Order: sequence, then structure tokens, then C-alpha cells
Amino acid sequence: MAEKVTLVGGGLSGSLMAVFLARRGYEVYMYERRGDMRGGNYEGGRSINLALSNRGLRALAKVGLDKEVLNIAIPMTGRMMHDINGNLSYQPYGKDGEAINSVSRGGLNIRLLQLADEYPNIHLFFDTKCTFADLDTGITRYQTAHGTEIEDKADVVIGTDGAFSAVRDAFMRTSRFTYSQTYENHGYKELEITPAESGDFPINKNCLHIWPRKSFMMIALPNPGGNFTCTLFMPYEGEPGFDDLHTPAQVQELFNKQFPDAVPLMPGLTKDFFENPIGHLATIRCYPWVHNRTALLGDSAHAVVPFYGQGMNCSFEDCIVLDEFIEEFNGDWGLVLDAYQKSRKPNADAIATLAVNNFIEMRDLVGTPEFLHKKHVEHELTELYPELFKSQYELVTFQTSPYKYAFDMGAKNDKLLAHIINGGLESKLTDKPYMEALIKEMLA
Amino acid sequence: MAEKVTLVGGGLSGSLMAVFLARRGYEVYMYERRGDMRGGNYEGGRSINLALSNRGLRALAKVGLDKEVLNIAIPMTGRMMHDINGNLSYQPYGKDGEAINSVSRGGLNIRLLQLADEYPNIHLFFDTKCTFADLDTGITRYQTAHGTEIEDKADVVIGTDGAFSAVRDAFMRTSRFTYSQTYENHGYKELEITPAESGDFPINKNCLHIWPRKSFMMIALPNPGGNFTCTLFMPYEGEPGFDDLHTPAQVQELFNKQFPDAVPLMPGLTKDFFENPIGHLATIRCYPWVHNRTALLGDSAHAVVPFYGQGMNCSFEDCIVLDEFIEEFNGDWGLVLDAYQKSRKPNADAIATLAVNNFIEMRDLVGTPEFLHKKHVEHELTELYPELFKSQYELVTFQTSPYKYAFDMGAKNDKLLAHIINGGLESKLTDKPYMEALIKEMLA
Repeated sequence: MAEKVTLVGGGLSGSLMAVFLARRGYEVYMYERRGDMRGGNYEGGRSINLALSNRGLRALAKVGLDKEVLNIAIPMTGRMMHDINGNLSYQPYGKDGEAINSVSRGGLNIRLLQLADEYPNIHLFFDTKCTFADLDTGITRYQTAHGTEIEDKADVVIGTDGAFSAVRDAFMRTSRFTYSQTYENHGYKELEITPAESGDFPINKNCLHIWPRKSFMMIALPNPGGNFTCTLFMPYEGEPGFDDLHTPAQVQELFNKQFPDAVPLMPGLTKDFFENPIGHLATIRCYPWVHNRTALLGDSAHAVVPFYGQGMNCSFEDCIVLDEFIEEFNGDWGLVLDAYQKSRKPNADAIATLAVNNFIEMRDLVGTPEFLHKKHVEHELTELYPELFKSQYELVTFQTSPYKYAFDMGAKNDKLLAHIINGGLESKLTDKPYMEALIKEMLA
Repeated sequence: MAEKVTLVGGGLSGSLMAVFLARRGYEVYMYERRGDMRGGNYEGGRSINLALSNRGLRALAKVGLDKEVLNIAIPMTGRMMHDINGNLSYQPYGKDGEAINSVSRGGLNIRLLQLADEYPNIHLFFDTKCTFADLDTGITRYQTAHGTEIEDKADVVIGTDGAFSAVRDAFMRTSRFTYSQTYENHGYKELEITPAESGDFPINKNCLHIWPRKSFMMIALPNPGGNFTCTLFMPYEGEPGFDDLHTPAQVQELFNKQFPDAVPLMPGLTKDFFENPIGHLATIRCYPWVHNRTALLGDSAHAVVPFYGQGMNCSFEDCIVLDEFIEEFNGDWGLVLDAYQKSRKPNADAIATLAVNNFIEMRDLVGTPEFLHKKHVEHELTELYPELFKSQYELVTFQTSPYKYAFDMGAKNDKLLAHIINGGLESKLTDKPYMEALIKEMLA
């Protein structure tokens, strides 16, 4: 009889992992706290978009969804910075039109659920909230929308239930579980730039737009409907801060002053501002991710802030790695799960740190001439010495080498760039023998 | 009518805080999960001792207990290192016989409970386990030993319920609560050195004994009965490690090899080893410590590892600071609690880090000639320039300036000592004008 794997949580990583497991022949039971998104109760209009990049695409390719998803995604080839006077400056993300892809979280989740439902060995349950997990027996319990209780017992349990994981709560009660949750001093609020009257995109659709304002920022990602989902990141306390904005007039005044070019494109600004909740920004780290035959995967193991656009990509990579170890160890779960956690933990830690650091870059540094110049020199190096030099952003976003490697190389890159810029070596950028030797030495 | 303050937890800091509050006229209700220690169900025989130093003594002085406690404490004026051949080396902790004091945790707790019971406005409840705390209303609930439930409502609630605080669990459910729990890779096991046949102490009673062995160590603190409580700190996995010790013969072999001078003094070694549990070593950090009128105090706010001997001292200092802010702000709890958390948090963070770092010092560095030499130069400086130079240990242990100050000064001291030792300046130690200028410059 096929072994049974229970997935607690049917979000993006749960749905994808279900498919991977079903393809290996396991009986998969997946319990999702919310209702079935496919039933239309997902709020598509206010869809939050995510940046899908190479790691995530590689996972979707393995289940045959990459091309289809790319067809309904909007490629963003770089950052477009908007200064306080509405002046624009553009920074490409990669080379040769490499792009990250704006996709609808809800749309992608629905597509993954549809795919999962095609497998007879995947059993989906909605409106079932996990209330208990026994890490010793593989027993989990759920409360249904009707108030009844379901009990499930599986050979393997995987907590794909996100940053506030109920499965992880059971890990918290084990001895020697290392855990941290850290909140940024900034919250976020989702707003909207609406389509032009023509129905077209009112600003360049193939960019991630940023309004960097040092202590705060707004970003905007395109949606297929011609609109953009904007996100305002701002301190709770501060000048400006969420705690100080009480009236539509105050919000309008802040935006008129700080984002004058965006205001005419945001007719619902003050309504959205006071109707939408303030979101919080958490980094969650823990270890171990495995206890007997129960494992954590995705945000339940490593919630990250969104500033490197890697949350979903990292979780999808978890699925690939777990799937590959199932193959390598022929389904011996003791070996599989231990190899999975040991392989993924350093990489999850690396992207968590990079994501926090990138917030400062996005809201502050991208608006400074020094940073833009550094990025320019970096871009020159990637174009001139593509085999020898890769930017950290490229390694994280367009490559699939481990995040930890990208983390380590980023520090070396920074030293190299400082050496070139501060050492007056920019004139030598095209001096191939000299520069190749320097790069090899400093990135060794 | 007097305001009511509920203390959840009647350990060391809860009992002391109860007295401070009672002296200010509050009605104090204290609920303790365990039974009443005064009833004799405290295991006095196996008493764990703690190192009481100036911060803790200052707090006890404020409630009039310092002299009495010192009378039954054993002063330890320095560390006595035991090498693998039984050779001894001694390092004084301070100057002029400054000492830390080995006291019985249980004995001290009982004395504080007795003192609390003298106040008619302190109400003690035992065998009452906190099951719920509502941070908005000040309501707490408890399960009694008989299975019944008690509900309490207070103006102010203080969680003095230790590292695994139930009150902190309620903080965990609030939004944006920063929290981390980190475990060392080492556990600990309590053992015993018994009195000599004469009833005397078999090794020097006025030292904290250390058997440093790099990756692991044993320490011993004296008890009034002539015995020593030993604690073996060792990795779970390793060579040696707790996970690899399964038989009395293995334990005996390890001790014969590593602690040959202690073995003859530990007749119950293998019995104790297999009867006593392995303890875990956690550092817990969180913030905020205050939500409305509920606060965390002591280990519930900041559990630290025991390697600087400051856990109890830090918690007692929390009590002093809270008491002083009650006076300063005339009982305006909003101001009192906010000032308390802002004042204590950086200091709790500092001692938590120092305590972790001190583990490496105790188990490894204290056994090296370089470290002993550095400590010697440091001691010379404290003797020659007592006004200008204080060691970090002295600042933490014998002074009451903030832990954060001791933390910062320790880093400066290290630079000064490296400068003197590596710069060949030891011959100038007694050159007053030169050295005074150097100290002033480097410690500025």
C-alpha cells in the first residue's frame, strides 16, 4: 500500500508539493484552512502579485506549468525609480532582457490546485483548520467550518501552513527547538494604480516601479488588467508613520508631497488607504525543521520579508529539493527529511538576511547617485566578464546556485566594486588581462 | 482602594517583587505553579546553588535581607582551574577579596517567601498553574491541584513565571512581538563532590572550581554542608557527548581520564549521572515586555545561560528598576512600565550576549597560557589604575553600572590589552604618566 503523506496547508507551496508527491506515487491528503479558492471566493480583483523568478520557474517546469504561467505573467526587466519630482531612472535587473515576472498569487494558487485535483491520489479538504499535530504519531486534527473535528494519521506530515504555522506550534513544544520571529519597524499597505482611460498601462508595464524615500517607499507591480498593485512600506511610528495618519486629508497631503507623479493615477487612494489593513513584516527562523516524520516547508520553516522577491521562489525550491532527496534516498523518509533540512537551512537563512538588507537598498540607496554608479560599474562587469562576474541579484534571481553561495559572493563582489571605484580603476574596466586577474583574485 | 497587582510565578524574582510592591502599598496576589517550598517539598539535599553578586545583594539590601543571606552564603574570591593532571591555577575575580557568593536557590526562595508572608497585603497561592492571561483586561486564570479553576483580575499583571512563561505565551499571540529562543549545543548534568570524612570541604571552599576541557567543562560551587554541587556542561553530540554515554563504565572512564583529581571526591558519580536529567541551556529574548498593564520580569523576559552567574542578579535588578520607576512616576503604571522596559531591555540583551560568550572563556580559554597572561595584565591594570580601569568582570559583578556599559567597556578593554601585550608595552605598566594617558585615550 502506498505511503500516506499529509500536507497541512494548501497555499502555494502545499499545492505544489502535493503534485510532486503524487507523481512519486504517495497518497496525499491536503488540508486547507480557508475555503476553496476555485469556488470564486478568492478576491481576484485585489489580487496581490508576486515576483516569480528562475527558482520558482524551475519548480513549475518540473510539473509542466512554467510556460502556461509565463503566458499570463508580466515580465519586469528592471527597476524604475521615481524621484520626488517625478523624474525617472532605470536599472536593469540582468542582462539581455532577463526579467522577473509579476504573477497573481491567487491565480497561481488556483492553477496549482486545479493541477493537484487531476491526480486521483491527491485528496483536497478545505475549510479545515489544523488544531493539533502529534509529532510522534503523525496524527493531526482539524476543525471544519461546521465545527466538527477530523482526525488524520499519516506516515509523513508536512507543515505547509505558512508563517503562523500550527504544525510549527507543535515543534515549539519540543525540547531544544530554536526559534525566532522578528518584525520590521515598518508595516505595509496595499493601494492601486488604475489603468489609463484607454485601458492601457498608465506607466511602463515592464518595470518594478519604486518611489524610494529613505525611511519609507512605495512600489508598484503590473497586473494583466492594466492596473498596478502598489505597496506603501512605512514605519508605524515616525515622520511619516502609519500611527500619525488619521484622515484622508493627511494621506492626500503626504502623497501629493512625496509621490506627486503617482497621485493622478490613484483615484481610490484615500478609500483604499483606510479600507485596507496594515500588514506586518516578519522574518521567522527556526530549527530543526524535522521531528520524526513531520517536517516544515516554505514559510512555516522560514518566513522572509518581501524585499528580494524570493519568498515563493525559496519555498518552491524547498519542494524541488525535497522531491530530489525522495528520489535519491528511494523514499527512506529518515534520510530524506534529514538531508532536506540540512541542505535547505543555510540557504533559507541566507535569503532571509538578504531580504532584510535589500529593504534598505530599495527604500534608500537606489535613490542615491553613489549607488546608481556602483550598480552601473557592476553592470559593466557582468557585461564584460559574464563568465567571471555575476552580480548578487543575478545569482539570487536568475541562477539556481544556492542562496548561501549568492550571499557569500555578494560580499566579495562588494569588496571588488569598492576596490575599483575607490581605487580609481574604472578606466581599466576594459583592460581585459588586468581586470580578469583582479576579478579572479578578489572573488577567489 | 489600593491597586491590585498580580504576580504570576513565585520563584526568586516573583517573591522579591511581591515584597517591593507590598512596601509601596499595593494589594499583591502571587500565584505559584509548584507547591509551597516552605512545606518541605523543596529538595534541599540536592540544592542547586547560585552565584549572588553585587546587583542581587543591592536588591536584597533594599528589603533588609542582604546580611542574613550573606551569613549563610559561601564567598568565592576567584576561579580555581584544575588541569587534566590535577594541577591548580587560581585567578582572583576582583580586588581586595571581592567575592561572589554561593547560595542555595531553594533556601533563598524560601526566605523570600517567608518575608512576603509577613506582609498582610501579600496573598500567596501555591499549586496554581497559570493557563490563561488576557493582556487587555488583566484577567488571568489558574488550574489548581484539585483540577478546579481560579480567575483573577488585577490592575497590573506581572509575569514572573520564568523561561517558559505562560504570560509570555499571551504576548506571543499579539501582533509584532519579537521573540527568540536559542539553545546551546551543550546540555548540563548536576553531580556532587561530597564532604571529606572529617565533614570538611575536600577542596578549597572559597573558589568556583573549573575543569576546563575546551569543548566541555565541569564546575563546582560550595554548599554550607561541606559538599559541592558540580555541573558537567557537555555537547549532546560530540566526543565526548551525552548521546554517547550509555553505561556507568563509559562515564567512569571519561571522568577518570578528564577529571582524575575529582573522581575520588565523587562517590555517587555514576549513580547521579544516570539518575539526574540532562538540563538544556536556552537564551530567550523578546520585546516588548509590556502590553497595556501586563509586564514580563526576570527570566520570562530574558532567560540567559548561567555562564556569567548573572541570571538571578539581573532579575533582581529588574525588581529594583521597576520599584524605582514606581516611585519616580508616582504609580502611573503607563509611564512606569514603559520606562521599565526601555531601561532594562538593552541591559538584558547585553548580559545575555556576555553570558553566551563567557561559556567559551570558561570551558576553553581559562585553560590557555595566553588567556591567563591576559588576565594577569588586566589584574595589574585594575590594581595600578583602579580609578581609570575596571575589568568587564568587575563591572558586571562588583559594580552596578548598566550591563550595557560593561558590555561596551569590555570591548574597549580588550583593545587596550591587545595593544599592551602585542605592542611590547608591559614594561611600561608602572609608568604612570604614560599608562594613564594610554588608558584614557583607548577607553574614551
